[in-house]
Amino acid sequence: MKSIAQFPPNPGLVSSPSPLLTPLSVHRRQQLSLGLIGPGRVGAALLQQLRKNQLRLAERFGVELKLYGVITSKKMWACETDGMQYWHSGNEGHPADLETFENHMRGKGAHVMLIDCTASDVIADYYEGWMRSGIHIVTPNKLAGSGSLDRWQRIQLAGNSAQFRQEAAVCAGLPVVQTLRDLIDTGDELLSIEGIFSGTLAWLCHHYDGSCSFSALLRDAHALAYTEPDPREDLSGMDVARKLVILAREAGLSISLTDVQVQNLVPACLGEVSTETFFSNMEALDVMMGQRLAEARAQGGVLRHVGRIDAEGHGRVGLCVLPLEHALARTSATDNVIQFDTRRYRENPMKIQGPGAGPEVTAAGIFADLLRIASTLRVE
Amino acid sequence: MKSIAQFPPNPGLVSSPSPLLTPLSVHRRQQLSLGLIGPGRVGAALLQQLRKNQLRLAERFGVELKLYGVITSKKMWACETDGMQYWHSGNEGHPADLETFENHMRGKGAHVMLIDCTASDVIADYYEGWMRSGIHIVTPNKLAGSGSLDRWQRIQLAGNSAQFRQEAAVCAGLPVVQTLRDLIDTGDELLSIEGIFSGTLAWLCHHYDGSCSFSALLRDAHALAYTEPDPREDLSGMDVARKLVILAREAGLSISLTDVQVQNLVPACLGEVSTETFFSNMEALDVMMGQRLAEARAQGGVLRHVGRIDAEGHGRVGLCVLPLEHALARTSATDNVIQFDTRRYRENPMKIQGPGAGPEVTAAGIFADLLRIASTLRVE
Repeated sequence: MKSIAQFPPNPGLVSSPSPLLTPLSVHRRQQLSLGLIGPGRVGAALLQQLRKNQLRLAERFGVELKLYGVITSKKMWACETDGMQYWHSGNEGHPADLETFENHMRGKGAHVMLIDCTASDVIADYYEGWMRSGIHIVTPNKLAGSGSLDRWQRIQLAGNSAQFRQEAAVCAGLPVVQTLRDLIDTGDELLSIEGIFSGTLAWLCHHYDGSCSFSALLRDAHALAYTEPDPREDLSGMDVARKLVILAREAGLSISLTDVQVQNLVPACLGEVSTETFFSNMEALDVMMGQRLAEARAQGGVLRHVGRIDAEGHGRVGLCVLPLEHALARTSATDNVIQFDTRRYRENPMKIQGPGAGPEVTAAGIFADLLRIASTLRVE
Repeated sequence: MKSIAQFPPNPGLVSSPSPLLTPLSVHRRQQLSLGLIGPGRVGAALLQQLRKNQLRLAERFGVELKLYGVITSKKMWACETDGMQYWHSGNEGHPADLETFENHMRGKGAHVMLIDCTASDVIADYYEGWMRSGIHIVTPNKLAGSGSLDRWQRIQLAGNSAQFRQEAAVCAGLPVVQTLRDLIDTGDELLSIEGIFSGTLAWLCHHYDGSCSFSALLRDAHALAYTEPDPREDLSGMDVARKLVILAREAGLSISLTDVQVQNLVPACLGEVSTETFFSNMEALDVMMGQRLAEARAQGGVLRHVGRIDAEGHGRVGLCVLPLEHALARTSATDNVIQFDTRRYRENPMKIQGPGAGPEVTAAGIFADLLRIASTLRVE
């Protein structure tokens, strides 16, 4: 194990304790030591929210949040006192090394939490080990919850040593994962989860009325930054499938991505080409989409991109024709809608609706998870 | 203080520990000792759910729920070992005495919770004292959260000693209170809460299309048990106003019922008469309701019963004409819909929708609160 001495106080960080954190009532005060992996848009929004609420949380909830480290794929920053109010990406860093970072964090009090704001499968491989050494994990990263089942089950078992939470991995700040867990934990029985899980595809379906081609609409959505830089990531349906797998596993089902039948809207001929080639040939999407729109109209319904999983763990993702009066047909342009059909909510399902993406609401979902863990910590 | 010896093992309760609760992993096992106040429809549904999940919770979450007492306005039952699997209202009881009941419960371990399933203002008066002596309170009773502001603030202060949760007081099992708290606690700013908070009035508005009179529809709703035994309790709007006050206070606003402007749909001449007289004269409702329906139609909209409160704590409850495309216009017949408008969810509010009444879903809301408190308990 490398020495903590490798981390001199960061030039950009003051070494005296933050004046904001002078203890107000020393007893019953818990310290939660945070390390952030991936200070990108979501990570930066989270730090912003934590900074703004650090004092209030200490006063009102007795939780002293302290930021002891930040790491990217290339650089890392560590500090011996709380860097929450001081860290910014312009600070001089050290070359990134996850093992050294972990050792540094481990020394930072009884309650340590790593927040993974990457979309990295490699980072997800570390969760189990971190948890076994008592480090809590909170993440919007979908890869642990929807990747290898074996890895997921090992993370679950490590739940004896530390907590793992992933609310923001499904529809950002909408309270989807916690609500599902409450349904299951209070003894309800899941019949199905159905919903609109992609704001991008919701927007495309909502605006696709035949007045222009689907590819033209896709170009607009891309220009408005409603899509991923490569829109095929949205069109493939895989992101929706991952959300379904995460929810199914949270409900106790042992399923994997292969259990979800996913309709890829990208024509086979455009699947492997460069992004540029894809953009020059997007018109190849129009025939299939035009046909689906015509079908929807012939049936007097609307076209929607829907994900669904049943109690046996059979999932489907793709375009559906829905009657106009269907709950998922009547949603606003970019909303996610998640509908829980359970034994208790059989006649009238429970629905949660709202924007399911964006740095601020995603960060808020992570923050809510952090608070849930903080509420369970013991004062040492 | 009266002696616990006043409670011999109840004839209806076996005195040996429940075989279901043989400890599986003795360390990390928390005991939560429960007392139920008001074993009516909701209380009975809750006991049913707790019974069914007692073993699973012990195994999976390390929480040993034990039922040590049940009390009604007339009788009480106490036991020295866990009575969860055995208690039923047919058991022989003792005359009810809240002080003795409280003393009995206080001796039952480090973590004691009283679940108030009454709608009693008198019981709400006890919360503060119980909490100060370390007893957690979970309740669907609206009276603490919407009654005297002074009492509410004293309950809040007692939150240093024990926890108070009231998720099921607003829209039963829908995750409304917790979601609002998460929004606020993560630093979001509330702009308004708007919604359909009465399933009964939602049903009435939904079916009131002029093909029959409003009073005839109300008779149907009463016959189907969709209304309170005295439908004026629904029509007064007070129940909706209480929910608004509870939510506003959970969001940190110091308001009272008097801050909510409530439209009472009951004509003044029928306000004070007996239920029988009310039923024989319900036609007095029809003129006003007919006028409102005509207005709605003239405006091309629909009639809905809406509650709304803004960030300054100004509340309104009553009939609204909503345009057809309004989110609250397009809801199913008996659903509650709660819409949170916040700084982060400004362009697209967050919505939670589903049935907001019924013993099973109300009990599930209480159960979720119980689990939230259980997750914060320390192993002694």
